[in-house]
Amino acid sequence: MNPKESKVAVLGSGSWATAVAKILLENVPHLYWFIRDNETVEQFLHYKHNPGYMRGVEFDTRRISFYTDINEVVRDANVLVVIIPSAFLQDAFTGLTEDISKKYVVSGIKGLISGSNMVVAEYFHTQYNVPYSSFGVIAGPSHAEEVALERLSYLTIACQDEDKALQFSKFIGCSYIRTNTSDDIWGTEYTSVIKNIIAIAAGIVHGLMYGDNFQAVLVANAIQEIDRFVSVVHPINRDIKSSAYLGDLMVTAYSQFSRNRTFGTMIGKGYSVRTAQLEMHMVAEGYYAAKSIYEINKKYNVDMPICEAVYQILYNNRTPRKEIQRLTEKLT
Amino acid sequence: MNPKESKVAVLGSGSWATAVAKILLENVPHLYWFIRDNETVEQFLHYKHNPGYMRGVEFDTRRISFYTDINEVVRDANVLVVIIPSAFLQDAFTGLTEDISKKYVVSGIKGLISGSNMVVAEYFHTQYNVPYSSFGVIAGPSHAEEVALERLSYLTIACQDEDKALQFSKFIGCSYIRTNTSDDIWGTEYTSVIKNIIAIAAGIVHGLMYGDNFQAVLVANAIQEIDRFVSVVHPINRDIKSSAYLGDLMVTAYSQFSRNRTFGTMIGKGYSVRTAQLEMHMVAEGYYAAKSIYEINKKYNVDMPICEAVYQILYNNRTPRKEIQRLTEKLT
Repeated sequence: MNPKESKVAVLGSGSWATAVAKILLENVPHLYWFIRDNETVEQFLHYKHNPGYMRGVEFDTRRISFYTDINEVVRDANVLVVIIPSAFLQDAFTGLTEDISKKYVVSGIKGLISGSNMVVAEYFHTQYNVPYSSFGVIAGPSHAEEVALERLSYLTIACQDEDKALQFSKFIGCSYIRTNTSDDIWGTEYTSVIKNIIAIAAGIVHGLMYGDNFQAVLVANAIQEIDRFVSVVHPINRDIKSSAYLGDLMVTAYSQFSRNRTFGTMIGKGYSVRTAQLEMHMVAEGYYAAKSIYEINKKYNVDMPICEAVYQILYNNRTPRKEIQRLTEKLT
Repeated sequence: MNPKESKVAVLGSGSWATAVAKILLENVPHLYWFIRDNETVEQFLHYKHNPGYMRGVEFDTRRISFYTDINEVVRDANVLVVIIPSAFLQDAFTGLTEDISKKYVVSGIKGLISGSNMVVAEYFHTQYNVPYSSFGVIAGPSHAEEVALERLSYLTIACQDEDKALQFSKFIGCSYIRTNTSDDIWGTEYTSVIKNIIAIAAGIVHGLMYGDNFQAVLVANAIQEIDRFVSVVHPINRDIKSSAYLGDLMVTAYSQFSRNRTFGTMIGKGYSVRTAQLEMHMVAEGYYAAKSIYEINKKYNVDMPICEAVYQILYNNRTPRKEIQRLTEKLT
């Protein structure tokens, strides 16, 4: 696997998919890009940028082959970088008849599979026989907007086969992307999911007028909560203070632009869940994550007071003020 | 030692001293307060607030005895809460002839002693024979402004005698202050010093137009750097992800109002050290801390690339852009 010879496909057309496509094109001569919606592809070819996201990023479309058929793209490419929101992933793969078990699959998805609550690695493993050793995760603090602006970012490639992680890291390292590798696909996947719940919590407490002192306590407790969870779910040696975990958490929890944080702020200010979602014209990923993690944790019983509070507020109609008050007694 | 019977003195008149005085008055019937400048005391008595800081916080001055003579205050009080900037500490204690070795001394100072580079605990121990077991540190994420507004904050009291830490925590716990205890005076003191250097680094990279992704990487690496340092200097069992360490670091590094960060931003934007200091009408604490930690670390040789970069920029006239570029190669 190397950038000059492998055929790399991006599957997805959102902002992070577009940012990763831009990065890949720094290293590969040609990119295979699956965008399901034909009209989007036509506009992309016409305007030389993604019509929906990152319009400021111009692409040399001569170096891109677009696909609207998933079977065709996986037939032509041998490295599949999948960055489709987890809520739409199953839908996007409906109709896949090609065997992808010999491909190297990399996920830039930050969410669990709806219904089954599987992490993406598990899903590709059980559904498509992709071995865990052929599955990678792109993790780390990564606002897509900053990548578009070529501001220096650090991404971690996690793969149980660290040689492959290292090989794939050559596809994305460039003047504005530094790479780390790790063997922890579970820890990075779960962290990228839980951080969105924490961002909602950060928004809620902000909406309730808690200040920066408390925010810092919340985030410090949150990384301990994440550490406890991933240590139980997948007990391997990891430093939770690394960029892929703590860095990713901080960039999300402290971001003024995070949809999850904005959603939380509205909840904290007294909006109902439904009204907040309508106002935002979208559902923040952490909303689903709160339920999934709550359900997964029924099995593990890890002490997760922050995630628990968010769940109770979003799904059991608990009053934010009271629930956060209760939470403050549990933090240290 | 308990809030109803002990005689507690605050020594200092800055914003954090004033905030801590406000907190103490939630628990003690009467406060002894040393403010060296007589005019400040007179104005305080007249206006019922500190004329220099936190003017919005009104005090019941009938419950306060002010002192301008350090010997008188230490004669009358048996718990001394010292919150004088470290640069002025020795000066403030000049003329002290009373024995304070039997007092319980608590430090809210976030800095090292000029010249000797001692932590405050060491200074009181060597200079005034205060046993380490009678010395406490107030740590944790604590913008004084938020305490003034009674926004919930978590403070950690560190003392090698954890019983005493617990006793003193009763002096400051109240509706808007939650307390933790710890036995780690060295780790909390050093963290509170190093975090100001990190805040300067955060400012420098901000001034150089690095974005939030990189900022998160910087802070994640910083807590690892702090962990390495305190593990060597004082190797005890501690969780560096606690509020007293990671929380304190985050609130400072992410604060828009931090003087250290503002100073760093000016340096990053190309101001000279001297010009930045003149513009700010003050010297950011991290400026001194960078030199002290650099000197202390000559002995320990801990890998501290962020502190080292700040030192080189501030004291060796290295170009911020080049030095930070070099730093980015060392971060992960």
